[in-house]
Amino acid sequence: MNKTLTGIDGLDKMLNGGLPSSRCILVCGGPGSGKTILSTQFLHYGAVRCGEPSLYVSLDEDINQLKEEMASFGWNLAKLEKKGKLAIVDASPIRHVSGDVKIGDLWIGKRDFSLVSLIEVIKRNAKEINAKRIVIDPITALTFQYSDVQDRRTAILDFFEALTNLGTTNLVTTELRSVTLEREIRDEEFLTQGVILLHVFVAEREIVRGIQIEKMRGIDHDNQIRPYKITGNGIEVFPQEEPLVRVHVRASALQI
Amino acid sequence: MNKTLTGIDGLDKMLNGGLPSSRCILVCGGPGSGKTILSTQFLHYGAVRCGEPSLYVSLDEDINQLKEEMASFGWNLAKLEKKGKLAIVDASPIRHVSGDVKIGDLWIGKRDFSLVSLIEVIKRNAKEINAKRIVIDPITALTFQYSDVQDRRTAILDFFEALTNLGTTNLVTTELRSVTLEREIRDEEFLTQGVILLHVFVAEREIVRGIQIEKMRGIDHDNQIRPYKITGNGIEVFPQEEPLVRVHVRASALQI
Amino acid sequence: MNKTLTGIDGLDKMLNGGLPSSRCILVCGGPGSGKTILSTQFLHYGAVRCGEPSLYVSLDEDINQLKEEMASFGWNLAKLEKKGKLAIVDASPIRHVSGDVKIGDLWIGKRDFSLVSLIEVIKRNAKEINAKRIVIDPITALTFQYSDVQDRRTAILDFFEALTNLGTTNLVTTELRSVTLEREIRDEEFLTQGVILLHVFVAEREIVRGIQIEKMRGIDHDNQIRPYKITGNGIEVFPQEEPLVRVHVRASALQI
Amino acid sequence: MNKTLTGIDGLDKMLNGGLPSSRCILVCGGPGSGKTILSTQFLHYGAVRCGEPSLYVSLDEDINQLKEEMASFGWNLAKLEKKGKLAIVDASPIRHVSGDVKIGDLWIGKRDFSLVSLIEVIKRNAKEINAKRIVIDPITALTFQYSDVQDRRTAILDFFEALTNLGTTNLVTTELRSVTLEREIRDEEFLTQGVILLHVFVAEREIVRGIQIEKMRGIDHDNQIRPYKITGNGIEVFPQEEPLVRVHVRASALQI
Amino acid sequence: MNKTLTGIDGLDKMLNGGLPSSRCILVCGGPGSGKTILSTQFLHYGAVRCGEPSLYVSLDEDINQLKEEMASFGWNLAKLEKKGKLAIVDASPIRHVSGDVKIGDLWIGKRDFSLVSLIEVIKRNAKEINAKRIVIDPITALTFQYSDVQDRRTAILDFFEALTNLGTTNLVTTELRSVTLEREIRDEEFLTQGVILLHVFVAEREIVRGIQIEKMRGIDHDNQIRPYKITGNGIEVFPQEEPLVRVHVRASALQI
Amino acid sequence: MNKTLTGIDGLDKMLNGGLPSSRCILVCGGPGSGKTILSTQFLHYGAVRCGEPSLYVSLDEDINQLKEEMASFGWNLAKLEKKGKLAIVDASPIRHVSGDVKIGDLWIGKRDFSLVSLIEVIKRNAKEINAKRIVIDPITALTFQYSDVQDRRTAILDFFEALTNLGTTNLVTTELRSVTLEREIRDEEFLTQGVILLHVFVAEREIVRGIQIEKMRGIDHDNQIRPYKITGNGIEVFPQEEPLVRVHVRASALQI
Repeated sequence: MNKTLTGIDGLDKMLNGGLPSSRCILVCGGPGSGKTILSTQFLHYGAVRCGEPSLYVSLDEDINQLKEEMASFGWNLAKLEKKGKLAIVDASPIRHVSGDVKIGDLWIGKRDFSLVSLIEVIKRNAKEINAKRIVIDPITALTFQYSDVQDRRTAILDFFEALTNLGTTNLVTTELRSVTLEREIRDEEFLTQGVILLHVFVAEREIVRGIQIEKMRGIDHDNQIRPYKITGNGIEVFPQEEPLVRVHVRASALQI
Repeated sequence: MNKTLTGIDGLDKMLNGGLPSSRCILVCGGPGSGKTILSTQFLHYGAVRCGEPSLYVSLDEDINQLKEEMASFGWNLAKLEKKGKLAIVDASPIRHVSGDVKIGDLWIGKRDFSLVSLIEVIKRNAKEINAKRIVIDPITALTFQYSDVQDRRTAILDFFEALTNLGTTNLVTTELRSVTLEREIRDEEFLTQGVILLHVFVAEREIVRGIQIEKMRGIDHDNQIRPYKITGNGIEVFPQEEPLVRVHVRASALQI
Repeated sequence: MNKTLTGIDGLDKMLNGGLPSSRCILVCGGPGSGKTILSTQFLHYGAVRCGEPSLYVSLDEDINQLKEEMASFGWNLAKLEKKGKLAIVDASPIRHVSGDVKIGDLWIGKRDFSLVSLIEVIKRNAKEINAKRIVIDPITALTFQYSDVQDRRTAILDFFEALTNLGTTNLVTTELRSVTLEREIRDEEFLTQGVILLHVFVAEREIVRGIQIEKMRGIDHDNQIRPYKITGNGIEVFPQEEPLVRVHVRASALQI
Repeated sequence: MNKTLTGIDGLDKMLNGGLPSSRCILVCGGPGSGKTILSTQFLHYGAVRCGEPSLYVSLDEDINQLKEEMASFGWNLAKLEKKGKLAIVDASPIRHVSGDVKIGDLWIGKRDFSLVSLIEVIKRNAKEINAKRIVIDPITALTFQYSDVQDRRTAILDFFEALTNLGTTNLVTTELRSVTLEREIRDEEFLTQGVILLHVFVAEREIVRGIQIEKMRGIDHDNQIRPYKITGNGIEVFPQEEPLVRVHVRASALQI
Repeated sequence: MNKTLTGIDGLDKMLNGGLPSSRCILVCGGPGSGKTILSTQFLHYGAVRCGEPSLYVSLDEDINQLKEEMASFGWNLAKLEKKGKLAIVDASPIRHVSGDVKIGDLWIGKRDFSLVSLIEVIKRNAKEINAKRIVIDPITALTFQYSDVQDRRTAILDFFEALTNLGTTNLVTTELRSVTLEREIRDEEFLTQGVILLHVFVAEREIVRGIQIEKMRGIDHDNQIRPYKITGNGIEVFPQEEPLVRVHVRASALQI
Repeated sequence: MNKTLTGIDGLDKMLNGGLPSSRCILVCGGPGSGKTILSTQFLHYGAVRCGEPSLYVSLDEDINQLKEEMASFGWNLAKLEKKGKLAIVDASPIRHVSGDVKIGDLWIGKRDFSLVSLIEVIKRNAKEINAKRIVIDPITALTFQYSDVQDRRTAILDFFEALTNLGTTNLVTTELRSVTLEREIRDEEFLTQGVILLHVFVAEREIVRGIQIEKMRGIDHDNQIRPYKITGNGIEVFPQEEPLVRVHVRASALQI
């Protein structure tokens, strides 16, 4: 199986050489966990170190704010854009479609228009720069539209299928909505070929960050939760450290 | 990235110099946690110490009661109003719109009228005093209107977009509805650039207050839960103290 | 800020001199926690010791049973009624309105009729005795009518606004529905100026009662959970005692 | 306040002399906790020892089975019936009403017909034997009909009002649906004048039964959870024993 | 009260002589807990040792598979069938009724047809072999049809009434859906005369099986959770062993 | 009872010789637990070592990706396909049926068309290669279509019935959606003859994998949770190791 280095050394070690190429990998985390930072770091590394043009598709965040925030890690996204090594696409207008849309003679509902439009936007932009790496951040905007589970699964599978057919290596971010290891697992986690979880929780006496490879098909990998930090260089992962586990601190009054 | 000092020393230290300017930051806490106090302190400091006119938009609380309560911290809001350094706007009439409203030839539903009206009210008042800081307290009144998740996300994103376009630094308060660290995360937390949580919980043997920067894009920050107090001066934060963690006290009868 | 003594010494100490006058304060507790006893004690003290006529509005409880039960604390409510120092109003007929009601040319729905009627009943009776203190027991009957969150918040805010406009100091009781500190917080707790919680829970090895001031705007107050008892004199609070925390007793078989 | 002895010595001690007369008291417990046994014991004692004719209204259980089961405690219900000291009424046919029913010119819905019928059945039978004690077992059949909270509260309050107007001392049983102290509290618990809970749970290393007086208006009472047993004589309560608290047994592997 | 031996020695000991005759007893457990084994053992014992013909009504499981599986315990069900001592009825076709069915002039809805049909099937087969013991496995197929709580309770009560009227001793199995002692109690548990729970859970350091008599009207019984095993002879219960309690194993890092 | 070896030595030991032949066995696990690996290993072993042609039916995963991923374990699925020892069927087009479909004169709804089509696809392909082992991966796509519990149970039972009638030994995978032992049990677990759970959880201080035979009718089996690993050879199970239990790590501050 071919591999694609993320550029985050500790993570590439946990993966024994990088992500499986040409797959859809989910990056799942809460607010402030570093999903966007990790994804951008992955694209930046591809564009700057591997000669792999990269595409960043933003569904929620404002693109100018994104460039400003990532600059603090020393990543000059605007410069890469000018050089054609990176494309940043604002897909949020899709958010504003209300009601049905007519395409030719066909009336398409808002939801399916979003999906079709998004796939078109991605294909077009990926082709333009001959992208090898793609980030979709986040997919939540897409999945929340479907209240029917069956429709949602189908939409997710179709979407991942379209991405995979581009031959690119894809990171798709999604929101981890409960701050606990004992959680409900989301549909997307069953439908991708890999899942990376970014946990932020209490261990011993303080809040720590832990990265976990919950699933990575076709690749032998470390499945413990390892510590990671957000530093001036982006995400740093420490796979040689002891595994992290969530600890509930309790004061116990012993009756002996 | 530019920074805006909150005037709460401990918090500015945790932020390494203040909030990121021209962003929307969420302040999330339960009843009695100090959301309104923190927000008012931020505006008061801006108006009095930084020469930055400030706008306070109240959606639920009665304005006269607010001025009376904040006076106990030595903040004379009425005086700042007269000097044009502070504007306090009562946006609660938006609450009473029932049914649809006609604007020109267009019929707008109650919900969207609330959103449009609120944005208009904010823009107009911000312009009048040339505001540099804005507080919206709370945003809950707005978000609860949307039962459809997709509509709610869109409304929140549009609202934050409108605020950010004003160039002001904005604190938006919201209600933390469960008294536990293991909670459901709200949409707004994923959609702003920063989130400050005000926890009130049991640690060891008493109730304590802990402030946590869950997320702050573009800024290196302390992500532990640090103690804070509500004193005669408003909110005081103690970042050099040991991090707080929720402790469940248990009496254990040991069977040895 | 003006203060109004409750007459419960320990509680007045926790409040540093009494409740903030002319505000709506929520008293929240489970069955048997003492909500009605505390509220009646507050009114009785006002009527007998402070020369402040008081109004008790009952939405659920039978008035004769109430007088009988409060007599066990030595409070002769019937006598105070005769002297015009106390009015006890049975607002429960509002419960029986079914369907819409016509007022003049206007058709008003059952829910809004309840709200309007209740406010009218309160105003009229408060005026008659020139009330300075009011108790609404409980507000639940009102809030449960609104399944839509937005409508409920609006109804609650309107109701509290009407009460506050009377200039009286108001205690409003509500039901705490889960016997745990880790609970869902109710809308009303965010919308009043103060919240007092009456907990009944396990601490160490027995059931204890703890009173907590969760929120009290404009007043510096003790925010720990302090023990209280229901004695022959009504509610007694012990603020100098160690704070209470919920303890889960666990028998642990140690494997050393 | 007048009191009515239950005949269960330990419980009468916890109540300092018995239940408050002419009130509605809720008896709340899980399957097998002894609700029916306690209620029957209360009626039997009244009929045999206090010369107080008693009425047992059964909504779910088959009457013949009930008599057979209670015989094992030495209570000969059939004999008391013959002597006119006890009436046992099978109110379950009310269960089978489907759709609306016409009474005179009035069409009454199934639910309200149940309520009206039940009250009529109770009144008629109570009058016949001049009952002083009544048991309704269980009220669940009535409350489950109302999905709307407001309607349910109103129905419960109306029902308790009708019972109280008979001047009898009433025990109403209801189902405790979760086997945990941390539970959702039911509407009925807020709407009666007293609540007795029958817990069955793990304490230390075995399952125990604990009786708790959660609420008892107008009466000073023991509010701890005290052990009780179901013996050959019915329910026996042990108020002088240490309070019971729920214990979760945990095996802890200590890392020292 | 008459008793019926189950043939499972340990359980008959816990019951002090067997189940109460002519009653409906619920057997409640998760997948793999042994509900079907226990029920079959009960019937087999009745047919072979007590000269009591038995009826097994299967709603979900394939009958041939059942016979094959029970053979591993040495129970030759096919032989007993031939001898007319046991009847095994496949009631699953009831599952396939879709929509309404016409019986004579009457249109009956699918749900009620299921109930009526099932009762008819049971009566007819019980009569044929003069059954003294009946097993319904499981009742879930019946109860899940009713989303309205009131309808479900009524259906369950009617069903149990019909069974009881046959004079047989009946075991009815149902599914325990959460693997925890802290669970929601099901309607059926309140509506039968006895409930036996089959728990499978973690105690100390391994998974154990525990049988508990939650309720058994008219019979003095052991109410602790006792260990049981599934052996080559079927279910074996060990009432003399220490009670089992659910243990959560926790590794604790002590801070001394 | 006949048995079918899985080829996973440790699991065959736990089963005392293999799975019960000609039955439907559920394999239930979270993302990354190894459901697909275990199922493929079972088929591969059957095809290569037992001369039993095998059929793999994929409902979600892309078939080419599957072959690539399984190659890392040394299983050359493409080669087995060519030799007619293995058939891999992509059943996902069933996913795309929208609305009703006409078959002959009969209009069939999408859901039932899926079920009928799936069964046809399976029968046809099983017949072609004379399959002895079948894997359906996953069944979730089928079950999620039915929101009505009764319909879902019926669909599942019908599906399992159709599979069993083929005489093959069948593994059906399904998604374990909560990462906790204290979970809601799914319908399918009650309706198959065997259930194997693949847990991934925290034990002591790291994440471990544990395999549990929750249920296996007709076969005496080990019911503890035993450790398993995903190695270069596929799934390896260690039945001689100590049972695994979920451990919550807690730091306890002892107050002695």
